[in-house]
Amino acid sequence: MTTELNLENLAKSAKKASIVMASLSTETKNNALLAVAENINKNKSLILQENQKDLENAKILVEEGKLTQSLFNRLVLNDEKIDVMVQGIKDLVMLEDPVNKTQWAMELDEGLNLYRVSCPIGVIGVIFESRPEVVPQIASLAIKSSNAVILKGGSEANNSNQVLVDIINEALKGVSGFPENAINLIKTRHDVAEMLKMDDYIDLIIPRGSNSLVKHIQSNTKIPVLGHAEGICHVYVDEHADFAKAVKICVDSKIQYPSACNAVETILVHKNIAETFLPVLVKDLQDVGVTVKGDTTVKNIVSNVEAASEEDWSTEYLAPIISIRVVADLDAAIAHIEQYGSHHTDSIVTEHWSHAQRFLREVDSASVMVNASTQFADGFEYGLGAEIGISTDKLHARGPVGLEGLTTQKYVVLGDGSVRA
Amino acid sequence: MTTELNLENLAKSAKKASIVMASLSTETKNNALLAVAENINKNKSLILQENQKDLENAKILVEEGKLTQSLFNRLVLNDEKIDVMVQGIKDLVMLEDPVNKTQWAMELDEGLNLYRVSCPIGVIGVIFESRPEVVPQIASLAIKSSNAVILKGGSEANNSNQVLVDIINEALKGVSGFPENAINLIKTRHDVAEMLKMDDYIDLIIPRGSNSLVKHIQSNTKIPVLGHAEGICHVYVDEHADFAKAVKICVDSKIQYPSACNAVETILVHKNIAETFLPVLVKDLQDVGVTVKGDTTVKNIVSNVEAASEEDWSTEYLAPIISIRVVADLDAAIAHIEQYGSHHTDSIVTEHWSHAQRFLREVDSASVMVNASTQFADGFEYGLGAEIGISTDKLHARGPVGLEGLTTQKYVVLGDGSVRA
Repeated sequence: MTTELNLENLAKSAKKASIVMASLSTETKNNALLAVAENINKNKSLILQENQKDLENAKILVEEGKLTQSLFNRLVLNDEKIDVMVQGIKDLVMLEDPVNKTQWAMELDEGLNLYRVSCPIGVIGVIFESRPEVVPQIASLAIKSSNAVILKGGSEANNSNQVLVDIINEALKGVSGFPENAINLIKTRHDVAEMLKMDDYIDLIIPRGSNSLVKHIQSNTKIPVLGHAEGICHVYVDEHADFAKAVKICVDSKIQYPSACNAVETILVHKNIAETFLPVLVKDLQDVGVTVKGDTTVKNIVSNVEAASEEDWSTEYLAPIISIRVVADLDAAIAHIEQYGSHHTDSIVTEHWSHAQRFLREVDSASVMVNASTQFADGFEYGLGAEIGISTDKLHARGPVGLEGLTTQKYVVLGDGSVRA
Repeated sequence: MTTELNLENLAKSAKKASIVMASLSTETKNNALLAVAENINKNKSLILQENQKDLENAKILVEEGKLTQSLFNRLVLNDEKIDVMVQGIKDLVMLEDPVNKTQWAMELDEGLNLYRVSCPIGVIGVIFESRPEVVPQIASLAIKSSNAVILKGGSEANNSNQVLVDIINEALKGVSGFPENAINLIKTRHDVAEMLKMDDYIDLIIPRGSNSLVKHIQSNTKIPVLGHAEGICHVYVDEHADFAKAVKICVDSKIQYPSACNAVETILVHKNIAETFLPVLVKDLQDVGVTVKGDTTVKNIVSNVEAASEEDWSTEYLAPIISIRVVADLDAAIAHIEQYGSHHTDSIVTEHWSHAQRFLREVDSASVMVNASTQFADGFEYGLGAEIGISTDKLHARGPVGLEGLTTQKYVVLGDGSVRA
C-alpha cells in the first residue's frame, strides 16, 4: 500500500504528525507504547505467519547463493524474539521522557528569562538491514522521543516489516490524541531515492549498514545524515600490557558476540612483546574456534595462522575471524587505527599511564578504552536504555544513540514586552 | 601562497594539527590567544594598509554596481574595529575550556568506569562573507576549542583576510607546543570545490550566508554541514496582545540592528485587532524611518504603505524595511512561519497563556519567544560568549553556536582487564 503513495505526500503527512507529536504528554506516549506492546503480543501468530513468507523466499535466495546463511538467520522470528520485542517496548515506558527538558536557564534581564529546552528532531528516515526486530525498536524510540519516522528495511523482510508496522499503527489508532502517519514504511530503492530529496520535510536520515551505504546516502542528499557504519574495532596490546588481561580482553572482544559491530577485527601487538605474547594469544583464540590471520611477522612467530593481506585491515568479518599485526610502537598503532579504523571503538591494553592517556586523547573514535573489552560499547551497557544504533559520525550524537540522541534543542525566551534598545 | 598548495595536502596538514591540538593544555591555548591578540594589536597599521587595497578594489565594484554600499561598509576596518577584535580574543581567555570536560560518568562494574567526555570536532571548514573581523573571531574560537580551521572569506576581503591569517600564524609560531597548520586560508571557488571533497580529513563545514549558499554546499559534499542561513524572523501579534508591548517589540525587533540575521522581516497581525492596532504600529515604524509593506488587508486599513508581494514573505531585507500581513488566527500564523520562515527566531506577543504555550511548542525554530524582541537571539545575549554564528540547522548545534557547539563527545571506558562474557 505505502509504496503506491506519492513519497512527497507521505513525507508531508509525517511532518504534520511530527508537529502534533511535539506536544504529546508523556502519559499519552507511554499509553501508546503499552498499546503497541499489547497489540504485538496479541498478534504473535500473524507475525510468525508473515515472517514465514519472507523465510520461504529467502530460502530460495540462500540456495541460489544470493543471500548468506547468517543474513537468513537474522530474518527468523520466533515466540521468544517477539517476547523480547514486547519487553523492549515496555522497558521504554520506564525511561525518562527526553522531550521538553530544560537543560539550563538564565535570567537575561528583569522579567526576561532564557531556557534551553530539548525538543524532538521532527521526521527521521531510517534505512536498515534485514532484522525485523528493528521495526518495533525504532518505532517505540520514535514514539517516546516524539519523532515521526519513515522506515526502509531490507526487502527480504518486507512481509515481516509490513505486518509489524500495521500492528503498530492499529494500536496507535486507539490512543487518544496520537496523530496518524507517525510511523511509516517504504519498500523500494526508488522510494529511498525519492525520500532523499525531501529535505523540506525530513530532518534527519539514519543509514545503518556498510561504510559504502552511508557514503552513498551522504553523497545523495541535502538532509543531515547520522551514519551508523560498520565497526572496524581494534585492541592494541602495548609493550607494557599485562599478558593475562590482554589475552582475556582480546578473546572477549571477539567472541562475546562476533557479528556485532563492536567486535574487534584487528589486534595490534607491540613488537617487543610479540615473541612471547603471540603464541599464548593465538592458542587461546584458536581454542575457542577463532580463525587467526597474521602479517609476516606474526606468521614468523606462530606458523599455524593464515596470511593476512592488506584488505584484511579494512575488513569487518562479522564472524569468528581475526587479523593480527605487529607494530613498532604506540605511534604506529594510533596511525594504523586512524588509517584503517571506522572510528567506532578501540581499546589499549597497557599498565603504562601516559600511553593510556595518549591513546584516549589521540584515537579519534566514538569509544576509546583502556584495559577493557570493545564489546562494552553498547547502549544498554552504557546505561542509555534502548539504542537506535551506534553513530560513527562525529556530529550531533556519537557512539550509542539512545533517546537523547533523537532530540535537538530550542532556545525559549520569555519576556514581558522586553526590547534590546 | 596557500592557493598554490594542493588542497589535499592542506587538509591533511590541518588534520595532523588537529590531533596535536586535541592534547593542548588550557594554558597553552590561552597563551596562544594572548599572543594572537598582541600581534594583531602590534600590526594595526599593516592591517589597515592591506584593508585599504581591498577597499580600493571594492570602490570600483561599487561604482560598477557589482557590490552594494552596505557590503562595502562591512569591508571597512579601522582602529576601533581592530580594538574590538583584540578585546574579543582576550575575552575568550576568560571562558571555560570546552574540551575534555566530563559530561557524566557511571560505574559499569567493579573497576570499570564510563565517562562521556567533550572533545574537539577536528578540522572545520568555514565559508563566510566579506567582514574581515570574522577571521580573528573564528580563529580564536578554533584555538580555544582545539579545532583546526580552513577559512574561505569573500574575495573582496582577500588582502585583509590574508594579512590577518599571517599575523595570527606568526603569533602561533612563537607559542611552545602549538602545532603548525592549525589556521588556514583558501581563496578561490575552485579551492572550495576541492575542500568539499576532503571528507577523509575535514569533519565539518560551516557555511554562513544565504539559504541558497547553504543548500548548494549541502548538495555538494559528504562532509556534515552546519548551516548558518539567513534569518527570516517573525513577530506574531496575537488577538490577546498588549498593544503597548507589541509596538515596542515590533519596532525594536527591526531597528535595534536592521542588518542582523535576528531582525524581524514580517509582522503577522491577528485580524480581530488589525483595525485598531495597525495604524499605531505603522505610524511608529514609519516615525523611525522603516519602510512598511502590507498585504491588501493592511493597505485597506492604512493606506500609506507599499504593497507587499508574495516574494516579500521570503525576503530577508537586511535593511529598515518590513512587511506586514493580517492572519486569521494563531494556526494561520504558525502555518505562515512554517512555510516562509527560516527556522531562526520567531516571537509571539500575547497575554494568552495557551496561545503562548502552543507557539513555543509548535513553531519549529532555533529560538522561540514570548513578549520579547527577536534581536535577543544572539550568542552574547544568551551568555555563550563569542559565537561562530547562528545555526538554522537542527542537528548538533542549533541557534547561537559558541565554544560548546564546536565540540563533540567521546565515550571513555577505563577497566582493569574487564570483559563482558
